[in-house]
Amino acid sequence: MTFIEKLRNRWQQADSLLCVGLDPDLAKLPDRFVDDEEALFTFCRDIADATAQYACAFKPQIAYFAAHNNGEAALQRLIAHINGAHPDVPVILDAKRGDIGSTAEQYATEAFERFGADAVTLNPYMGRDSAAPFLARNDRGCVFLCHTSNPGARDFQELLVDGEPPEPLFQRIARTIANDWNADGNCALVVGATFPEELKVIRDIVGEMPLLIPGVGAQGGDVEAVVRNGKTADGTGLMINSSRGILYASRGEGYAEAAADAARELRDTINRYR
Amino acid sequence: MTFIEKLRNRWQQADSLLCVGLDPDLAKLPDRFVDDEEALFTFCRDIADATAQYACAFKPQIAYFAAHNNGEAALQRLIAHINGAHPDVPVILDAKRGDIGSTAEQYATEAFERFGADAVTLNPYMGRDSAAPFLARNDRGCVFLCHTSNPGARDFQELLVDGEPPEPLFQRIARTIANDWNADGNCALVVGATFPEELKVIRDIVGEMPLLIPGVGAQGGDVEAVVRNGKTADGTGLMINSSRGILYASRGEGYAEAAADAARELRDTINRYR
Repeated sequence: MTFIEKLRNRWQQADSLLCVGLDPDLAKLPDRFVDDEEALFTFCRDIADATAQYACAFKPQIAYFAAHNNGEAALQRLIAHINGAHPDVPVILDAKRGDIGSTAEQYATEAFERFGADAVTLNPYMGRDSAAPFLARNDRGCVFLCHTSNPGARDFQELLVDGEPPEPLFQRIARTIANDWNADGNCALVVGATFPEELKVIRDIVGEMPLLIPGVGAQGGDVEAVVRNGKTADGTGLMINSSRGILYASRGEGYAEAAADAARELRDTINRYR
Repeated sequence: MTFIEKLRNRWQQADSLLCVGLDPDLAKLPDRFVDDEEALFTFCRDIADATAQYACAFKPQIAYFAAHNNGEAALQRLIAHINGAHPDVPVILDAKRGDIGSTAEQYATEAFERFGADAVTLNPYMGRDSAAPFLARNDRGCVFLCHTSNPGARDFQELLVDGEPPEPLFQRIARTIANDWNADGNCALVVGATFPEELKVIRDIVGEMPLLIPGVGAQGGDVEAVVRNGKTADGTGLMINSSRGILYASRGEGYAEAAADAARELRDTINRYR
């Protein structure tokens, strides 16, 4: 089964558009993990197990592992655990890779073979040939940055570019990916929840393409506006990510239950607007 | 000493604008490394030791390590070896990172603390706040993608963007970094050798800012055009990278000597046009 098929099945099966972000910041973990060398793995495993029933996808952020010695081993164990215990929930490795073709081949090996992810986030700035080694793995998903959730998204992504029609850069990127790079139907885009009007425009450009939506919760995105502007005709099409709001719902012994409650609540809030 | 100071000293001291790229592709290593579990480290260490006298910088490409289990440990050993044995030669970690601020903090820790690099390559697509955690480390270098060496560089980087003046996106990025992001003087740009005319334009925009130039050798860039169009008034300003042409100069027992010869020749060719 391809990433996109797995995702579509999961949207239906779990009745959820919630993506659970796994960004383990050691400074914010529950108190029991102080001085625990296995903290990265154990904490994320506990969160994954507690929230899987409410999730359409998991999204580990590789930077939170790569900042630490042996962090990659923890990430490998985590994804192997998810693939074994929750095989219906696709894993998107958030890595925002992008490089020339020969290097991109290595990054594709990193994401898909070494870490066993179903999909990976990618930066489109270097163009078509930098994406080709990922696109060629058409059983996996390629999730390209389009309009990101941070304030700096305005710096370059919104610049008006020449052409027919003239349009902001992020729209040109969405159009190029939808019309060209997505020939095998294995693409998705990142669109920040903090820019709901831009989300609406992107949905119009890309048809049914899945959209990964960071920025609800800590970053302030509005769930109702995201669902209204981003959903497809059948009420799916979205992976609405929450990381901090779920991971750090409690620092106490009940952190996993608190995470499950936060995930269920956000899933239900999303579903209310579908 | 900051990265930029270290680089300027090295340009003078070694009379070299050559950057040696360390991209260890297991399929291309000398025959003696077949089935050698330490190959990533040992091969790169041998190349670094053989070429250091001709190098103004080393540039390990993290993807070639990250594709393998325990690759990061090899990369850590390699950079620690260079920092110990060749302390005058700065190390640029080629990682092309770029993410929202809280995640970028983790990536800065990865590059500068965990790996001990003097500088890191970064993707500017996500804007100012995604660069801020790196810029704040003003003893280290931030090397931003501007106009890359690959064919796909034309897809988005050359799009004409609105403004005063209207200009291609890569020029707007160069201008923004030179005029705003470089307040602490710790920025540099990536400009592909395969686009010498664009290099000339970028040099005019950024003044004395160092430029990292991939794409000579296997990618076909013209050394004379690069030096003529890219050098600063004092005949420096460039880190002209070669990876494959040096690393794989020989598959035999004399691989290190062959790499040294290739590095010396390229340094001399570069110097002929300064």
